[in-house]
Amino acid sequence: MKKTLKKGAALTAISVALASLTTAGFAQEASTADVAKETAYIFNTLLFLIGGFLVMFMAAGFAMLEAGLVRSKNVSMQCLKNISLYSVAGVMYWLVGYNLMYTNVDGGFIGSFSFNYLFDAVGSGADGSYSTASDWFFQMAFVAATASIVSGTIAERIKFWPFIIFTVILTGIMYPISGSWKWGAGFLGAAGFNDFAGSTIVHSVGGWAALTGAIILGARKGKYGEDGRVVPMVGSNIPLATLGTFILWLGWFGFNGASQLAMGTIGDVSDVSRIFANTNLAAAGGTIVSLIIMQFTYGKLDVTMALNGALAGLVSITAEPLTPSPAMAILIGGVGGAIVVFAVPLLDKFKIDDVVGAIPVHLLAGIWGTVAVVLTNDSASLLAQLYGIAAYGVFTVICSAAIWYALKVTIGIRVSEEEEAGGLDRSEVGVEAYPEFAFGRS
Amino acid sequence: MKKTLKKGAALTAISVALASLTTAGFAQEASTADVAKETAYIFNTLLFLIGGFLVMFMAAGFAMLEAGLVRSKNVSMQCLKNISLYSVAGVMYWLVGYNLMYTNVDGGFIGSFSFNYLFDAVGSGADGSYSTASDWFFQMAFVAATASIVSGTIAERIKFWPFIIFTVILTGIMYPISGSWKWGAGFLGAAGFNDFAGSTIVHSVGGWAALTGAIILGARKGKYGEDGRVVPMVGSNIPLATLGTFILWLGWFGFNGASQLAMGTIGDVSDVSRIFANTNLAAAGGTIVSLIIMQFTYGKLDVTMALNGALAGLVSITAEPLTPSPAMAILIGGVGGAIVVFAVPLLDKFKIDDVVGAIPVHLLAGIWGTVAVVLTNDSASLLAQLYGIAAYGVFTVICSAAIWYALKVTIGIRVSEEEEAGGLDRSEVGVEAYPEFAFGRS
Amino acid sequence: MKKTLKKGAALTAISVALASLTTAGFAQEASTADVAKETAYIFNTLLFLIGGFLVMFMAAGFAMLEAGLVRSKNVSMQCLKNISLYSVAGVMYWLVGYNLMYTNVDGGFIGSFSFNYLFDAVGSGADGSYSTASDWFFQMAFVAATASIVSGTIAERIKFWPFIIFTVILTGIMYPISGSWKWGAGFLGAAGFNDFAGSTIVHSVGGWAALTGAIILGARKGKYGEDGRVVPMVGSNIPLATLGTFILWLGWFGFNGASQLAMGTIGDVSDVSRIFANTNLAAAGGTIVSLIIMQFTYGKLDVTMALNGALAGLVSITAEPLTPSPAMAILIGGVGGAIVVFAVPLLDKFKIDDVVGAIPVHLLAGIWGTVAVVLTNDSASLLAQLYGIAAYGVFTVICSAAIWYALKVTIGIRVSEEEEAGGLDRSEVGVEAYPEFAFGRS
Repeated sequence: MKKTLKKGAALTAISVALASLTTAGFAQEASTADVAKETAYIFNTLLFLIGGFLVMFMAAGFAMLEAGLVRSKNVSMQCLKNISLYSVAGVMYWLVGYNLMYTNVDGGFIGSFSFNYLFDAVGSGADGSYSTASDWFFQMAFVAATASIVSGTIAERIKFWPFIIFTVILTGIMYPISGSWKWGAGFLGAAGFNDFAGSTIVHSVGGWAALTGAIILGARKGKYGEDGRVVPMVGSNIPLATLGTFILWLGWFGFNGASQLAMGTIGDVSDVSRIFANTNLAAAGGTIVSLIIMQFTYGKLDVTMALNGALAGLVSITAEPLTPSPAMAILIGGVGGAIVVFAVPLLDKFKIDDVVGAIPVHLLAGIWGTVAVVLTNDSASLLAQLYGIAAYGVFTVICSAAIWYALKVTIGIRVSEEEEAGGLDRSEVGVEAYPEFAFGRS
Repeated sequence: MKKTLKKGAALTAISVALASLTTAGFAQEASTADVAKETAYIFNTLLFLIGGFLVMFMAAGFAMLEAGLVRSKNVSMQCLKNISLYSVAGVMYWLVGYNLMYTNVDGGFIGSFSFNYLFDAVGSGADGSYSTASDWFFQMAFVAATASIVSGTIAERIKFWPFIIFTVILTGIMYPISGSWKWGAGFLGAAGFNDFAGSTIVHSVGGWAALTGAIILGARKGKYGEDGRVVPMVGSNIPLATLGTFILWLGWFGFNGASQLAMGTIGDVSDVSRIFANTNLAAAGGTIVSLIIMQFTYGKLDVTMALNGALAGLVSITAEPLTPSPAMAILIGGVGGAIVVFAVPLLDKFKIDDVVGAIPVHLLAGIWGTVAVVLTNDSASLLAQLYGIAAYGVFTVICSAAIWYALKVTIGIRVSEEEEAGGLDRSEVGVEAYPEFAFGRS
Repeated sequence: MKKTLKKGAALTAISVALASLTTAGFAQEASTADVAKETAYIFNTLLFLIGGFLVMFMAAGFAMLEAGLVRSKNVSMQCLKNISLYSVAGVMYWLVGYNLMYTNVDGGFIGSFSFNYLFDAVGSGADGSYSTASDWFFQMAFVAATASIVSGTIAERIKFWPFIIFTVILTGIMYPISGSWKWGAGFLGAAGFNDFAGSTIVHSVGGWAALTGAIILGARKGKYGEDGRVVPMVGSNIPLATLGTFILWLGWFGFNGASQLAMGTIGDVSDVSRIFANTNLAAAGGTIVSLIIMQFTYGKLDVTMALNGALAGLVSITAEPLTPSPAMAILIGGVGGAIVVFAVPLLDKFKIDDVVGAIPVHLLAGIWGTVAVVLTNDSASLLAQLYGIAAYGVFTVICSAAIWYALKVTIGIRVSEEEEAGGLDRSEVGVEAYPEFAFGRS
């Protein structure tokens, strides 16, 4: 519907709002309030739309990060998995997820199963202050992020379809159920658990699911030598991984900023602004601390560590991006960066093969960020935070383990040794990522 | 003009609006209406600006998609063509295109040729509800998308300057003329043709121009063996193509969402939200259906098919992203994805060499999307839709054929066989895309 | 803080604004004005947030542009430098930069050193028309851009930590001091110098710092043969450089558009729209002119020249993106494009080794753009423009030279010949960018 067809349409509703205007004082009063309410509705909805497209673009960020950090023989697969999981997440979160997370939770453990809802023509939240469809779009992008986290850790050896089945359950059922505990006003909300934008609810959930998958799936062949030696399997395309990190950083302004859920007042939009600033400073802190620790501990730099440091900073500030002072934001992010540097080799000690470093970044920094809420938010208690962290951990590990095992004993989750050696691109995707370049160093 | 210079400026106009305020009832009434009108104007303009920069970024999406899907010896050329066509589109749509499309069409076939207009200082639409410059910016990005579609199909053998000349005419004359038929309130608007954001007006027009070009230009040397065998000429960089697809997906929220043309009311911004949700679901549907069909029909996956499936889903929903229910959006997009999977080999049967699959994605899914409007929009009729599709097809094919032929018999449109074999980057661009990597498999 | 917790919060402030409403005329008048003021505050803040995330994303643009234009053995280093400098810029501009630039300048040469400020809960500008944190975020992204410019020119031979130290001083002290002269209402503002969004204050400052660094650091080994021959050292990844250029182009809408600093009125948002249009047209002009000159002068095309032509067009329009007519915007950008084509070989004559062409693009086109303000802005004088250009040049060259020299004689700024030959990725970063592809052509 273009240009000429919309003539005058833009002002229709306002005209309606003004239609009953008379010169009587009371009627005018109503009109001012109506205009103010309409304006706030538009601002709130716009925040979800802008935040939503920024978080949606994080799907590209994860895809590039992971495509850059796997070996060239598995790059096409990583691309395919990422566009597929984002698609699946969208459909599942429409089909059951959104309602399951947000309707009739009432302090409990789960919402309603209800299919095929429509978005209201003039959508509205409980209080009519934003469009439902815009909120759905924003929240859907969060679900997809959770699945993206899993995708990175278990790369280079998992079969495509089992991963998709896991994604279907994760995005349609698991995440919406556990998400309801806090964001759907379930029992953890009532218990005083705080998680502003999802250090735990999104990132550590993704991290737990990834960890469980990595353990059940096992390490890549040859990653851990029999003599205990860890064989480096380096990423094939560092600028892509860098691009992915920058895209994620960009998307995080939507992730944290729009989790304010409103910008229709001076107070709300100022809060969104401070969240932007703190989010940026935490990421900067993560990067810088990881650089410094690498230099002092190992005497060398490592670009992938700096990238993961930035991401860990972002994850760390996500549970509470509003109340910290800028200095605290840098500190909280910086600790996240430190966690990554120390945790990456630790995972190798336990022979947990996390291809892109998603477990340190999303699980460990996510836990840290959730705990760190108590440093700046007076309404948070350490006990409630730990309770929440444990609840999400236990639920996600048990569910994930059950699903991964069920898939393992039925259709199988791992490609054959020959397929793994030759790369998933040839055996599963049928398209090499760089047919003219890569000489197949493995 | 920074900080200190603007002190107080922000509220100037509102102050002006409030300046005549007295305690008299009538004056206050005017003031409330003025504030409401000003707010709606800003929201509408902001929608064009946000939508505009998202659609502008689609130029990068097309560039990456195409750079990823051509062979490495032609990648620099594809990059050069894409930044050049976006530049040319901007200048031509300013010089003649915009006026030709939107002024004095009056139910007819063409607007006014009028050069060198300025953007109004306080721009305004016909009803003063948005800034003209913001609308120009948004619509300009659409024109560029049309040219980008052509660029992909005829890659790897066309000369640079003839392509640019074609782009000059397409973006300055052809597209604006045919665009005026509907969006400029021309005869197709009067005839009841519906195309919300351009399944036909943008995508199938680009597709017809590409198809005509592909036929007149001929296939790449060696693509179709004498024994009827189709030789695969695989893309050189799958993650770039994936990135391009994600960027296009992102841009499509602007493409479809801002085609609502207004968000100054609760109704409009709620419509924009539902368009966002439907656009995302249609793309998801396209991806998923293409995955499933590939698996069941060919027994294997194909990442380029999934990418094109997503794009076909997006094209399919573009003619009517507002009225479908979410389930219908998934279905409409899913059919688009199916079309791509079946049409790609079909084109090869006819020896039409479409390097990136733009004809199935933009032309065929564009036609499907335009027809599908009748499924959900009661104001649409199948006859009017087919009438519109035919009108755009006939006009674009005739004009394109005339231009391609004229270029062919004058300056020539195709590089020599040696140049094609050696790659356009060496012969025309003078810069290899990957001088240190590619070993030149052809 | 999600969904259910915010019930009703969105309208709190408006309720407050309306709370004192009575039926008395005076009280209603105040309410309308309050709503209008609140709305303007939100719009202004939103402009900073949107502009801010677009300019923030330019960090990714610079990273990709530079990663694409250096040789593969130095790509990881370029990625690492770019994410690090963006992080450092954020912390330094919070720690001292922002206050130094904007507080108590009062027509002078420098603001106040004041540490550890907090962002106000409800931030406000001097006149309470926007959130301080949003303005900080926006301005911070500008500082980072300045550092990115330096990073490109001196690539492929500088050590990591000395570059970081330079960045600390540039973003924390140098840029904020010189920035205060105009944007902080210092002496150059009083002298009538005009620079809307930073052709001089951002781009030529970055260019001067880069030029000084390039001279003190010296050219890459082998770049200039003893017989005066210039050895081409071509970029390793043209599509990445193209992507970077498109990202920068996208970001520039935030850079120039949000430098209007307000969009709470019809006048302001219309100005922002015209800035978007002019910015796009200037970039288009730069691209097209560089293409045409290359074809006519050298008889061939060059994709890197087209990319730099686009960027030069953008830099050229940055000093005054509002007052030019569209035709003038194309012309101003076009001259920028021409400057690049002629200046790149000129620099080689002087054996100044600018790896990515940042000096022609940011310094020379920046000067041109600053001069070109007088063509369209009646309030600008040539004398004041030249005065400003000279002031920024002298200050930045002297400071930069002092810092580069101090670093050179202490910790050293240049890697060893062997390290340079082997690539910085191996010697400094420890991670090769493309371990499976590059065969190390140097």
